[in-house]
Amino acid sequence: MEFKLQFTDENARCAQITTAHSTFSTPCFMPVGTQACVKALDAIDMKESLGAKIILANTYHTYLRPGANLIAEFGGLHNYTKYDLSFLTDSGGFQAFSLNSNTKHEEDGIIFKSHIDGSKHKFTPFSVLKTQYLLNSDICMVLDDLCALPASEERIKASLKRTILWAKESLKMKDEFLNIDEDALLKKYSYELYKSDFKQKIKAQKREQNIFAIVQGATDKNYRKECLEGILSCENKHKFDGLAIGGLSVGEENILMYETLENLCPLMPKDRPRYLMGVGTPLDLVVGVKNGVDMFDCVMPTRNARNATLFTSFGKLNIKAASMKDDENAIDNNCSCYTCKNYSRAYLHHLFKAKEITFFRLASLHNLHYYLTLMKDIQEAIKQKRFKEFYNEFIKIYKLI
Amino acid sequence: MEFKLQFTDENARCAQITTAHSTFSTPCFMPVGTQACVKALDAIDMKESLGAKIILANTYHTYLRPGANLIAEFGGLHNYTKYDLSFLTDSGGFQAFSLNSNTKHEEDGIIFKSHIDGSKHKFTPFSVLKTQYLLNSDICMVLDDLCALPASEERIKASLKRTILWAKESLKMKDEFLNIDEDALLKKYSYELYKSDFKQKIKAQKREQNIFAIVQGATDKNYRKECLEGILSCENKHKFDGLAIGGLSVGEENILMYETLENLCPLMPKDRPRYLMGVGTPLDLVVGVKNGVDMFDCVMPTRNARNATLFTSFGKLNIKAASMKDDENAIDNNCSCYTCKNYSRAYLHHLFKAKEITFFRLASLHNLHYYLTLMKDIQEAIKQKRFKEFYNEFIKIYKLI
Repeated sequence: MEFKLQFTDENARCAQITTAHSTFSTPCFMPVGTQACVKALDAIDMKESLGAKIILANTYHTYLRPGANLIAEFGGLHNYTKYDLSFLTDSGGFQAFSLNSNTKHEEDGIIFKSHIDGSKHKFTPFSVLKTQYLLNSDICMVLDDLCALPASEERIKASLKRTILWAKESLKMKDEFLNIDEDALLKKYSYELYKSDFKQKIKAQKREQNIFAIVQGATDKNYRKECLEGILSCENKHKFDGLAIGGLSVGEENILMYETLENLCPLMPKDRPRYLMGVGTPLDLVVGVKNGVDMFDCVMPTRNARNATLFTSFGKLNIKAASMKDDENAIDNNCSCYTCKNYSRAYLHHLFKAKEITFFRLASLHNLHYYLTLMKDIQEAIKQKRFKEFYNEFIKIYKLI
Repeated sequence: MEFKLQFTDENARCAQITTAHSTFSTPCFMPVGTQACVKALDAIDMKESLGAKIILANTYHTYLRPGANLIAEFGGLHNYTKYDLSFLTDSGGFQAFSLNSNTKHEEDGIIFKSHIDGSKHKFTPFSVLKTQYLLNSDICMVLDDLCALPASEERIKASLKRTILWAKESLKMKDEFLNIDEDALLKKYSYELYKSDFKQKIKAQKREQNIFAIVQGATDKNYRKECLEGILSCENKHKFDGLAIGGLSVGEENILMYETLENLCPLMPKDRPRYLMGVGTPLDLVVGVKNGVDMFDCVMPTRNARNATLFTSFGKLNIKAASMKDDENAIDNNCSCYTCKNYSRAYLHHLFKAKEITFFRLASLHNLHYYLTLMKDIQEAIKQKRFKEFYNEFIKIYKLI
């Protein structure tokens, strides 16, 4: 992975990242394709209509269904989904934790029951990276131990210990990725769908797995520092390709997240991307960038779209409001997305009220276009050294909502 | 409306129809946009991806929500939905009957309760055509009295009497359509959403309302003949622009429908389109054409798509079958639709199993492409005077399913 830092404006950064599958500018937002599909949209929507250069898929979900082995047989996520640009995959740890009541954290991994069929599984630092290898993720996340906030000192300390230990384990995969033994891998996972041309397909893929470590530590600046230092001290001839900030936006006050970013970001290496996981609102993104974050992902734009909340240049718009019924305007007359170019608020209001599936795609296209355009505007502001003005202007508009 | 009969091959006909909004060839299939939206698709899908030149919308649904007056204010169905080619609208009688248990047929119309809010409404031959005027339908259907099959002699006779009477009433709208008094119309319907530019908008539309009458008579050839003759005897200086066959595919054996078409079609005027309402399977379409039917509509392609049943050149395919899980083929390798060009059966299987909304659009695009392509192939076969071979070949493939 190539990370070229191109412009800075105080702490805000603009870089270019090149993976085996695409080149994209940061700060960037990654649409979420939980089950190897961005909800209500398809690969052509993502590439052609939205111009998204990187999306996220969830390891937990794809591991359980359709299975990483099957995706590998199809030539990885890229060929299976036909979205052939970059994929970042999370480690699966967060879902194993959030979707199950019976999750058990052990020193060497996480035991959980499938939310689909109740079957028992274990994620270890090695297993999740091997799964991500099969998915052919461009950016793989290490397994971390996340705790919901608020958490006890004891829980946070245990989380830090495991997170650092698991990061260290994960780094060993750097060698293994370069020289992976597919036969052993197949044997280990005893792939039911094994086909004779599996190895050939797995080898034909453009492949370069990058590994990002994850910094935990709740909203405490000392714990965050300790975790970051612990992770960096694991590095040897191999380094992590990027560093993520995990465990935020999990129930804490917004201001605590912002303070955590303010304290943590300046300590993070400048030569690698910084990724704030699972965050957030447009405001969170702008504040994140101000503190030096490069990458974001969140289900908010697509989830809100499905609930009729649309983002615009003048704040949020509730398309199910009665006032929308006869409104001839586009969602946002300043917006150039597919939906705004073609449809009125009135028609979208009708589609939502009439429970037409079509609504979900049109609303999701709009909200993702808003997020992706926001990131482009941010990049432009950083390049022109006017991010501060951009930030102030944005805060002003956003506060009006 | 211009109806140019271009080719015939025994009873099969190929014609060109031109309305105020599009020109299309027959035999044609009209995708169904019940609530002013073809389920899971949008206007661009219909026009650009599928090339559909005419679609159907339901008067009952659009009348109740969002309301015909609102659609009129937006410049009719064409501008409201942004599908600016031809619309055929049914009369609403069928839904008033099928969606309600409390429907009451009176001599002058149908009283029913809204399935949305329970409010009471009455459809009369005049009111449904006025509603269709507001929708700016290119082809308007008269109100008819449909009976479920099997039905008593008494019920069928009552249905015929009303259907003929209502057709006669409807024909009077021909004059009114040419010289409609919008002020009176607005007053009569006391539009809550009345806006000052309403009249201007209604007048700015391309407008030419055509009226099709509907032949009822269950599966009895004598009743069908009586109804057709009754309807044609109403004609004076004005004629119906087309004739529809209603009340079929409502519970009777398939063979009875085919026999009814065989008996009725030869009696129908040759100089106008014949429209078989709400029918049907691909086989029904091919048999319909063989008997001289020109137009069809049915929810089958979109409804089956949502239930994972896909139509192909070799029969039906159940995409949820376990065998699809690792199938790298397109739904139909011979198909050139958006979905087959881009996605594998395996990925579509996964999207269905994972309950991804995206599946509904991709499957609907494929099934509608199948129906629309089938009609193009039929047109070509008629032009080349080889419809009989086409029919025999089709029957052979279809019987294999």
